[in-house]
Amino acid sequence: MPDHTSPGTLLSELRARPPLVHCITNFVAMNIAANVLLAAGASPAMVHAQEEAGEFAAIAGALTINIGTLSSAWLRGMETAAIAAGQSGKPWVLDPVAHYATGFRRAAVGRLLELGPAVIRGNASEIIALAGGASRGQGVDSRDGVEHAEESARLLARVHGAIVAVTGAVDFVTDGERAVRIEGGSALMLQVTALGCSLTCLVGAFLAVRPDAPFEATVAALATFAVAGETAASKAHGPGSFSWRFLDALAALDASLLDRQARLRCA
Amino acid sequence: MPDHTSPGTLLSELRARPPLVHCITNFVAMNIAANVLLAAGASPAMVHAQEEAGEFAAIAGALTINIGTLSSAWLRGMETAAIAAGQSGKPWVLDPVAHYATGFRRAAVGRLLELGPAVIRGNASEIIALAGGASRGQGVDSRDGVEHAEESARLLARVHGAIVAVTGAVDFVTDGERAVRIEGGSALMLQVTALGCSLTCLVGAFLAVRPDAPFEATVAALATFAVAGETAASKAHGPGSFSWRFLDALAALDASLLDRQARLRCA
Amino acid sequence: MPDHTSPGTLLSELRARPPLVHCITNFVAMNIAANVLLAAGASPAMVHAQEEAGEFAAIAGALTINIGTLSSAWLRGMETAAIAAGQSGKPWVLDPVAHYATGFRRAAVGRLLELGPAVIRGNASEIIALAGGASRGQGVDSRDGVEHAEESARLLARVHGAIVAVTGAVDFVTDGERAVRIEGGSALMLQVTALGCSLTCLVGAFLAVRPDAPFEATVAALATFAVAGETAASKAHGPGSFSWRFLDALAALDASLLDRQARLRCA
Repeated sequence: MPDHTSPGTLLSELRARPPLVHCITNFVAMNIAANVLLAAGASPAMVHAQEEAGEFAAIAGALTINIGTLSSAWLRGMETAAIAAGQSGKPWVLDPVAHYATGFRRAAVGRLLELGPAVIRGNASEIIALAGGASRGQGVDSRDGVEHAEESARLLARVHGAIVAVTGAVDFVTDGERAVRIEGGSALMLQVTALGCSLTCLVGAFLAVRPDAPFEATVAALATFAVAGETAASKAHGPGSFSWRFLDALAALDASLLDRQARLRCA
Repeated sequence: MPDHTSPGTLLSELRARPPLVHCITNFVAMNIAANVLLAAGASPAMVHAQEEAGEFAAIAGALTINIGTLSSAWLRGMETAAIAAGQSGKPWVLDPVAHYATGFRRAAVGRLLELGPAVIRGNASEIIALAGGASRGQGVDSRDGVEHAEESARLLARVHGAIVAVTGAVDFVTDGERAVRIEGGSALMLQVTALGCSLTCLVGAFLAVRPDAPFEATVAALATFAVAGETAASKAHGPGSFSWRFLDALAALDASLLDRQARLRCA
Repeated sequence: MPDHTSPGTLLSELRARPPLVHCITNFVAMNIAANVLLAAGASPAMVHAQEEAGEFAAIAGALTINIGTLSSAWLRGMETAAIAAGQSGKPWVLDPVAHYATGFRRAAVGRLLELGPAVIRGNASEIIALAGGASRGQGVDSRDGVEHAEESARLLARVHGAIVAVTGAVDFVTDGERAVRIEGGSALMLQVTALGCSLTCLVGAFLAVRPDAPFEATVAALATFAVAGETAASKAHGPGSFSWRFLDALAALDASLLDRQARLRCA
């Protein structure tokens, strides 16, 4: 990445002017996602009700929508927020958690996709299924490798004009043409719930910093996660000790450390 | 326990083929319960809405229902899921949190009980009240000793054809005839919120592994919790340091360690 | 403070007879707030539905209401609970999270204020805006110093006949006439989500202990938080390691330590 769009540069900008990130996420992720954003330096706000989600989306720098613990009432709030974000020119991120699992979820994601997310983040099974492929996901867990989702991701990015991020052992980000792989993180991250959901919120934070560069913003968020995850894992003895070390590592990360340790490769 | 139904054997089976556990639990427990299941090796999914809870229950290996932060909308989702679980032959666990506290709660538990849970898990005050006795519970906390709930548990098990687990300083599990006491754990566990709720979800995970042996599955879940709790407490300095050590201990537990350290006695 | 209303005396009373605290709080705060109350020695219960919130408020020692993740259904539960608390003579605490951010929130707080909270706790931006001033809050975060909210707090206290607590680097508590400043805590507390919300619940716990002395109860809760926060911060390396150390410090705090370390000044 050129210096002015490197992960470290974007992290510095985020810290200098903490963006307000409007998160509509699931009940499992609420607390850890807010803590991840605070540790990274952003200002999270969890606002979901149809009565105010539209008004709030127009105030915030970016919006993130995650369908983890979906219901009809929440779906109405999500649609209201996504429409308002679109109208006020704010980018938003879609996290289609286990969208393949039920008819209700499939229909919900279909409607949200039509509202034009700037970024779609999912695990390999979710991205494969979203592109119309046959995924092997079980519940919310991926059973597919990221490498098997790359073509699906490119297709999805082109069809929806969005950045698509597939996260797993090695992450993959594409705008349909360009693509980057991001190494790092730790297998322990699969043993801690809602870290993927939290990453979606962090993508929103970087998008708010650089709404005009969603590809670079997404890469920066994933690189931040990967470096902090690797740092935390080096001292952790299990998922419990990983979690709090991960927040400490996120808070301690600075621009130069991030750019030095991020392992990005063009794909 | 015979070797083929020992806690360690069941834990090995759970790890070899991670079961998908459908959890409808309360807002306080969502995150820690998911982390407990992941640390133990299972695959949790929190799905509560009436629109999809039935479809999802049929996919999962087992279902758990906890009425902690109840509302009418959630109760409809719980009933839909319990009915679907019954129709597709999937076992489910009922956690009747503070069911004695309000009329709404009492009515809800009455309806759920009629849908045939395979296992009922509660603290002593909850189990005594569920069997029609006079409990001294305050809010969600038990004020009764497990030993005072044993007869209530046996009665409840016989009336509902279910396994009943009473958890506390020494746990008690019965199918109405057989009974086992499980020692271990730590007093620190009472200072960490939602560990009982998380245990209910873990009972679901073991039930999914051995739907034909709900008594042994319940004992295995409780033994796993007791051993991990004892391990974590040995190094903890309070409820905060206990929590993450407990997740580390759960993840580090293996079959032989579990069978060696579990303290089960026929009652 | 005189000995019989010192923070330590009130903490001892709380530990001797753990009060049942009815908390209606947001999804982000649910777990950490319950853990804070348990660590301090109180008995938290999260009960929000209109169907039972009134019945439960009459059972509990005090009620706390936080509008963090508001919706119309939850607002009905909050109003039902506040009315029941009033009718049964139980004090309650209002936490007007980001009430200035949307019309829905402003209207909700207006209705709740009319139901007569005993204590209002907020950050400086929230208190300034509640008193009709121009605040600079962004989302849920304060952008104003506590010192700029003191006159707003005094005004608000007089108009509503309530104790008003403004929390920040140095906390400020007033009944409209008397006022106390409380030093302590740590800047790390701003990097951990929902600690303010948890403090609101802890104010409820102390209120339940001394419903007749809401000023002293509020000061005791804030002093407890400040001392535990300072203790935890002395060994923490970031927001992750702060969180669990804070719970350990709360649990380890005793009356004499609290009274020795609390830094209160009349204002």
